[in-house]
Amino acid sequence: MSLREQFSPRLQALLARDEWLVAEEEYDPAQNLAYESRFCLANGYMGSRAVHEEGFVKNTLPACYVHGVFDRSEAFQRELCNTPDWAKLKIYQEREPLSPESGRIAEYLRVLDLKNGLVAKRYLHTDSRGRRTRVESVKLLSRAMPHCALLRVWLTPLNADALFEIEDIVDATVTNFMDFPRFRVKHLQVEKIECLGAEGCYVETKTRDRDLPVGTGSFTRVLNEKGVPVQRNRAFRPYGEIACEFMDVRAEQGETICIEKFSAVYTGRDGKPLKPALAQALAELSHHGFEAAVQAHVEKQAALWSLADVQLTGDEKMQKALRFDLFHLLGAASFTDDRVGIGAKLLHGEEYGGHSFWDTELFLHPFFDYVFPQVGRNLANYRYHLLDAARRNARRNSHQGAQFPWESADTGEEECPQWTIEPDGSCYRCHVAEYEHHVTAAVAYSAVQYYRITQDQDFWERQGLELLAETARFWASRLQYDAADGAYHIRQVTGPDEWHEPVDDNAYTNRLAHWNLVTAAGYLAECRAARPEVYARLRQKIRLKAEEPEEWKRRAASLYLGASQGLIEQFQGYFALADGEITQWDQNKMPLLPETLRLVPKQQRCILKQADVVMMLFLLGQEFDPETQRLNFDYYEKRTLHRSSLSPGVHCIMGIRTGESARAYEYLERSAYVDLDDNQGNTREGIHAASAAITWQSVVLGYGGMGLGKDGLLEFAPQLPDRWEKLQFSLQYRGRVLRVCITQNELSLMQEGGVTPVAYRCNGTVRQAILS
Amino acid sequence: MSLREQFSPRLQALLARDEWLVAEEEYDPAQNLAYESRFCLANGYMGSRAVHEEGFVKNTLPACYVHGVFDRSEAFQRELCNTPDWAKLKIYQEREPLSPESGRIAEYLRVLDLKNGLVAKRYLHTDSRGRRTRVESVKLLSRAMPHCALLRVWLTPLNADALFEIEDIVDATVTNFMDFPRFRVKHLQVEKIECLGAEGCYVETKTRDRDLPVGTGSFTRVLNEKGVPVQRNRAFRPYGEIACEFMDVRAEQGETICIEKFSAVYTGRDGKPLKPALAQALAELSHHGFEAAVQAHVEKQAALWSLADVQLTGDEKMQKALRFDLFHLLGAASFTDDRVGIGAKLLHGEEYGGHSFWDTELFLHPFFDYVFPQVGRNLANYRYHLLDAARRNARRNSHQGAQFPWESADTGEEECPQWTIEPDGSCYRCHVAEYEHHVTAAVAYSAVQYYRITQDQDFWERQGLELLAETARFWASRLQYDAADGAYHIRQVTGPDEWHEPVDDNAYTNRLAHWNLVTAAGYLAECRAARPEVYARLRQKIRLKAEEPEEWKRRAASLYLGASQGLIEQFQGYFALADGEITQWDQNKMPLLPETLRLVPKQQRCILKQADVVMMLFLLGQEFDPETQRLNFDYYEKRTLHRSSLSPGVHCIMGIRTGESARAYEYLERSAYVDLDDNQGNTREGIHAASAAITWQSVVLGYGGMGLGKDGLLEFAPQLPDRWEKLQFSLQYRGRVLRVCITQNELSLMQEGGVTPVAYRCNGTVRQAILS
Repeated sequence: MSLREQFSPRLQALLARDEWLVAEEEYDPAQNLAYESRFCLANGYMGSRAVHEEGFVKNTLPACYVHGVFDRSEAFQRELCNTPDWAKLKIYQEREPLSPESGRIAEYLRVLDLKNGLVAKRYLHTDSRGRRTRVESVKLLSRAMPHCALLRVWLTPLNADALFEIEDIVDATVTNFMDFPRFRVKHLQVEKIECLGAEGCYVETKTRDRDLPVGTGSFTRVLNEKGVPVQRNRAFRPYGEIACEFMDVRAEQGETICIEKFSAVYTGRDGKPLKPALAQALAELSHHGFEAAVQAHVEKQAALWSLADVQLTGDEKMQKALRFDLFHLLGAASFTDDRVGIGAKLLHGEEYGGHSFWDTELFLHPFFDYVFPQVGRNLANYRYHLLDAARRNARRNSHQGAQFPWESADTGEEECPQWTIEPDGSCYRCHVAEYEHHVTAAVAYSAVQYYRITQDQDFWERQGLELLAETARFWASRLQYDAADGAYHIRQVTGPDEWHEPVDDNAYTNRLAHWNLVTAAGYLAECRAARPEVYARLRQKIRLKAEEPEEWKRRAASLYLGASQGLIEQFQGYFALADGEITQWDQNKMPLLPETLRLVPKQQRCILKQADVVMMLFLLGQEFDPETQRLNFDYYEKRTLHRSSLSPGVHCIMGIRTGESARAYEYLERSAYVDLDDNQGNTREGIHAASAAITWQSVVLGYGGMGLGKDGLLEFAPQLPDRWEKLQFSLQYRGRVLRVCITQNELSLMQEGGVTPVAYRCNGTVRQAILS
Repeated sequence: MSLREQFSPRLQALLARDEWLVAEEEYDPAQNLAYESRFCLANGYMGSRAVHEEGFVKNTLPACYVHGVFDRSEAFQRELCNTPDWAKLKIYQEREPLSPESGRIAEYLRVLDLKNGLVAKRYLHTDSRGRRTRVESVKLLSRAMPHCALLRVWLTPLNADALFEIEDIVDATVTNFMDFPRFRVKHLQVEKIECLGAEGCYVETKTRDRDLPVGTGSFTRVLNEKGVPVQRNRAFRPYGEIACEFMDVRAEQGETICIEKFSAVYTGRDGKPLKPALAQALAELSHHGFEAAVQAHVEKQAALWSLADVQLTGDEKMQKALRFDLFHLLGAASFTDDRVGIGAKLLHGEEYGGHSFWDTELFLHPFFDYVFPQVGRNLANYRYHLLDAARRNARRNSHQGAQFPWESADTGEEECPQWTIEPDGSCYRCHVAEYEHHVTAAVAYSAVQYYRITQDQDFWERQGLELLAETARFWASRLQYDAADGAYHIRQVTGPDEWHEPVDDNAYTNRLAHWNLVTAAGYLAECRAARPEVYARLRQKIRLKAEEPEEWKRRAASLYLGASQGLIEQFQGYFALADGEITQWDQNKMPLLPETLRLVPKQQRCILKQADVVMMLFLLGQEFDPETQRLNFDYYEKRTLHRSSLSPGVHCIMGIRTGESARAYEYLERSAYVDLDDNQGNTREGIHAASAAITWQSVVLGYGGMGLGKDGLLEFAPQLPDRWEKLQFSLQYRGRVLRVCITQNELSLMQEGGVTPVAYRCNGTVRQAILS
C-alpha cells in the first residue's frame, strides 16, 4: 500500500503522490528532534518546527522563528529568537493525555508532503484504560497568508463514547537552547496574555534588548462530521506566560470530531498594530474556512514548484532528496522582505543564531539568482542595508571601506564573539571574526553574480556598485606591502579551512581579494564611461577619490597570489607541514585522519577541514587551466576530511569539472542526504542550508554544466550520471521562464515569456531557446 | 541490612532508627504522586510536596502551600494557592539530565524520617553513555526557621571524571490542579524575577484577587569534600516566570561533591518587607551552615515529639502509622498563627481548597487541645476571627447569630459553591452549603471542649462565650415551630451522611443544635453569676437580650429529638426507607452495597455514607445509656459503607465503647493506614487530616479510654487490644506535662511541672498524678 493510501480519504484528498512524501514510519522518541527539523514547515515569513502539537513528548524543541526577530540578552550574540509556540493543542480523555508518548501507539505514520507543503499524520492511540482513539492531523503554514498557520486534528473514539478535553495553547515560556542549560536564554518578555476577543488566545511579547513586539494568537473550535461547531465549556485561562483556552467535546463511538486551530503571528516589523491585524487574519481564515485556505496555500506552493522543481528521471532517492532540499530553501527565503538574510540552519533551527555567513552568498545565492531572482535581490539588499554597519566594522578593525561581519544578524554588527563559552564551561578565545575576512569578498562576488545573471540594472546602479566599491576599499586597505619582495600580502588571515588559523597569504582569500579589487575597478570604469551620472552620484556618496580604482588595480597586480599553474599552495608554508594522504574511510565513506598524523597538532599538518584551493577553483575556475584544476582537486581531496558540511557539494562540482564523475556522485549523495540521513548527526539542530543549496548547484551547475560565459551568455555543458535518464529544471531568466530538459544525448530549452528568444551556448555551440 | 544502614555514613548521621523511617524501596513512576503526599514536609508555616528536586519526572505535582495564602481567580472557590516551587535543583551531565526518570536507576531508596522531619534518598544513576553516578540527598523544612528549607544533594561519579551542570530554580509557573486541565488555575501573578543579591534567585508573586505578595528565594552553592565552594560559571538567568541560576562543577572519579540549596518564603502576612527578610534568612543559614541548621531543626522536632509521641509496645506497624499520622498533623498545625485553619488535606495537597470543614473541629481539635493547647486555641481563634463573616452568612440565609460556612478559607465567606462543574463538564447544583448546617454546632462544640480541657479562662471570656452565644442564636433562629405537634423541628437539613439530602430532623443535627442551645444558656448563666462584668461586656457587644438564653432553653426543650433510648432514627422517615443489611465485603474489607438495594436510589434506601447516629453518640454519648449506644452502633454499622474517610475512626471508638474491640481494631487499621496503604486510592491528592487525627483519638480516647468527666476530672478507662503490651502518651494539661503509661493491667500518670498533683479518675477511682 502506498504511503498516501494509508491515510483516510479526508487526508488522501490533501496529499500528493508518494514521490513527494517523506515519511516517518514509526515513532521513535530518540529520533523526534531530527524529525522536528526535517518536517519543519516554513513559509518565507516564519518557520515552525514539527513538534507534535499534542505535547507530552520528552525530547522536543518547540520553536517558531520569525524572520528578523533577533535578540541578545544573556546570549553572547544576537540570536534568531524562539517566539511563542502557537502550535500546541493538548488533548485529554478525562485528564489522561493523548499524545505519541502517552499510552500505546500503533499504526503511526507521519509524512512531510513536499509538493503541498504540509505535514500529515495518523496513529492509533490506546490509553491506560484501554480506550482506543484514531488520531489524524494535518498542519501547514500558509503560503497565501504568510502570517497564518492551520492545524486540524481528527479524533475518532473506536471502542467507546469519549469525552475529550482540549487545550488550545499559545505558549510564551519558550527559550532558545531549551535543552542546553548552559546556553539557554529567554529572549522575549511577555507583555500580554489575554483572550483574543470573545474567544481565542493572544500573547504579546517583546524582545528584551530592543523592544521589538511579537504578537501570537490562535483560535480553535471543534467541528462534528457535518462541520457544525460542537465544543462546550469554552474557558480562557491565563497561566502566567501561557494563554490557554479550554474546551471539551463528546464523541460517540465511531464518530469523528475535528479540532481546527488557526494561528497567526505579527511582529513590529510588519508595520501594523499587532492584535487587530492578527485578529483580522484569523477572522478571515475562519470566515473563508479551512478548505479554502488550504487551496489558496497549495496553489501558491504549486506556483513555486512550477519554477523550483528539478526532475531527475531514473534516480528516485536523489529526486526526493533534491526536492526535500529545495522545499526547505523555499520555506526560508523571503520573497518580500529585503532586510532579512537566511541563516545557516534556515528557519528550522537556532544553531548559529540564525545568522548569515558567507555560505548564504556563495552557496544559496545562485539557486535564487537563477530561479527566484527577487529573492536573490532581497538577499543582496539585506547586505546592502547593513553597509553602514560593515563600514563601522572596518573602521573598528582599522580598515577602510566595508568589512562584512563573519556572522550577521539584523543590525549588521559582528555577532561572532571574541570569547565564547564552550560546552564544558571553559572560555574560548574565538579568532574567527578577527582573522576570517573572506566573507566580504563573498558579498561582492554574489552581488556581481546576481547582476551578471539577472542584468538587474536598477540594483546594480543603486546598490551593487556601492557594495563592490566599498568591499574593494576594504581589501585595498587590508593588504600589507612588503618591501622585501615588493608585493602585497594578506597576513594573519584564515580561509574557509579553519584548522589553519591564522596563516599568511591564504590562496582562497588572496584570490578573492584580487578578484574583488580588479572587478570593482573594472565595473567602476565601465560605469564611469557608460553611465556618468550614476558614477558621479556614487563618487559623491562614498567620497570616492578619482585615483582609488586605479590604486585597487595597482595593488591587485602586486598582490601575492602564489602559483597560477600547477600545484597551488593553500597558504605560505602549507607545503612544509607534516604531510600524509588519506587512505582510510569509515563506514559512512567519511575520510579518516592518517594514522601517521594523529599526534601532529592540526595547525602543523596538511589535513584540512575543507579545501580552500578547491573552493577557490570552484568560484574562479575560469582563471585556471583544466590540468591545474584537476591536479589541485586530486591533491587536496586526499588531504580533506570534509568536516564542514559545505565541503562535499563543492567537491561534487569540482569532481564533475575535473572528470571524476563517480566520486562526484558520492559527494552529491553526502550533500543531498545530509539531513534525510542525518549523516552529520546534527539534523536535530536544523536543516543544513548550504548543503541543500549546493545540492541544487551540483545538479544544475555541476551535472547540468550550466553557467554564464565570459560574454554573459548562458551556457551548458551537461554531464549526466549514467543512471539519470533525464534532468529537467527551470529558470526565471531576465523576465522569461526557461524550461531546461537534458537527457544523456540532448538538451532542449523552452522559453515562456519574452518576445525574443534567449541565446545560450551548449557544449560550445550557440543556440536559441524555443519560444513556447 | 536496616534501612538506615543502606545510606552512606553522611546520611546515617542524620537519620533516626528504622522504627521512625517510612520507606519507598523502589521507584515506580505510577506511585510517585502518592509518595509526593506521603513524604510531604511541612513545618507549621508551609508544606512542600516530596517532588524529586532533579525534575524530569512525568507524574508530578510540585507544590508549596503556605498557610493563609488563598486566591480564587477562575476557580469556583478560594483555594490554598500553589506558590512558587523553590525545591527544584536540576542536574545534568553535559546536558543529559540526571533524575529518577532519565537514564537507568538502581539501588533506589527514599525514606521519610518521622523523628527528625526530613526526607533522604539515594540511588545509582547510569546515563545513556554508561556514566554511573551515586546520588544522595536530604531535604528538610526547618522547624527552627519556619520560613526556610534546606536541601543537600551529593553526587559521586563512579566510573569517570564528571562535569555536572546545575540549575538552581525557583519556578513560578506553578498552578493549582496542574494535571487537571478543566480545573487548572494559576493563582499567582509574577511581579519580579531577579537575582537575590549578587547571587541567588528571587521570585516575587502576588495573589491575583487580593494582591497578597509572596516572596520565594534560594541560594545554592557546591562544596567539595573539604567544604570549600567549587561551583564555576555561576550565571543568573530569568526565564519568564522561572528564576534560574546556572553553575557547573567538575568532579573526579570517586570524588563526592555536595550541592547545597537554601530556600526561603515570606508572604505579605508576615509583616516584613519580603526580599530583605528573605535575604537575611538565607544569609543566616549560609553563615551558620547546614549542620547547625539541621541541628536546630532536629532539636525543635524532638521537642514536639517529646509531647506528641504515642508509644505502642507490641504493635510495630500501628506504631509507625500512628507516628506517620501525628507527624503530618504537627506539620500542618500553626503554633503561632491564629488566623489560619487546617485544611482537609493538611498542607499536603490542594484537594478541598485547603479549606477548614467541621472535621477540623471534631477530629483534629482534641489532639491539639490535649497535647498542644496553643494550637487548639489558634484553631478556635481562627473561627472567632471569622465570626463577622459567619454573622453575615447567617443574615444572607435569613438566620440570626453566626452560621459558619461549610467550607472556610481566609475570609470566612462560604466557599462551597452553589454550582460546580463536574469532571465530565456538566454543571452540578451543589446543595451542601445550603442544607448542611452542623458545622456551626461543631465550632461551638470544639470551643467548649477546648475550654473544658484547658480551662483557658482568657479565651473563654474573650472569644469562647461569644462563639457559643452566636452559634446558639443561629440554631434558635434555624428551628421551625410546628403547631401540629407543638414542637420545633429542623427541616430541610443534611447531616454528615450526605446520601440523604435534605431530610427533616436529622438526629445528629438536632441533637447538636440542642446541645448548643442548652450549653450556651448554661454557660451564659454561669458567667452572669460568676463574672458579671464579663457578661455585661458580652451582652453589650453582641446586643444580647436578657430573655434570649431562656428562649434558647425553651426552644431546645421543645426541639424534636426522636428516641432517647432504643433505636434512634437518623431522620424522620429513615426507618421507612428500603432496608437491607450489609453482608459482603470486598478484598479490602470494605462493605459492599447489598444486592437487593442496588437499583434503589441513594435517597430511598437505608444505606449510609457514614452513620450520623453513631457520630452523634460519639460526641454526646453521655446523654445515652450503654445499651442504646450498643444497639444503635450495631444497627447502623450494618448499613454504613464508610465512603467517607471520617467514618472508620468514629466506628473504632464507638466499637470500643460498645465492647466490639476486635471490629474496633479493624476500623483503627482502616483509619491509621489510609495514606500509608493508599486504601482510598487518593493519597496522591494529599494526606487525610481527619483520619490522621481520629487515629490519635482512637488510640488515646478510645483504647486509652481518656476523657473529661462531667465534673471536669480527667478520666481513663483503658481497654488495650491484647497485642498491645503498653501504651504511652503525653498531654500538656493545664500547664503541666502528664506522661501516661498504660499496660494491660496498670495505668500510671507522671506529672512534670505544677506544684500540686493533677487529680484524675481511672476506671472510676480518683487518683493523683505522680510528681516527677
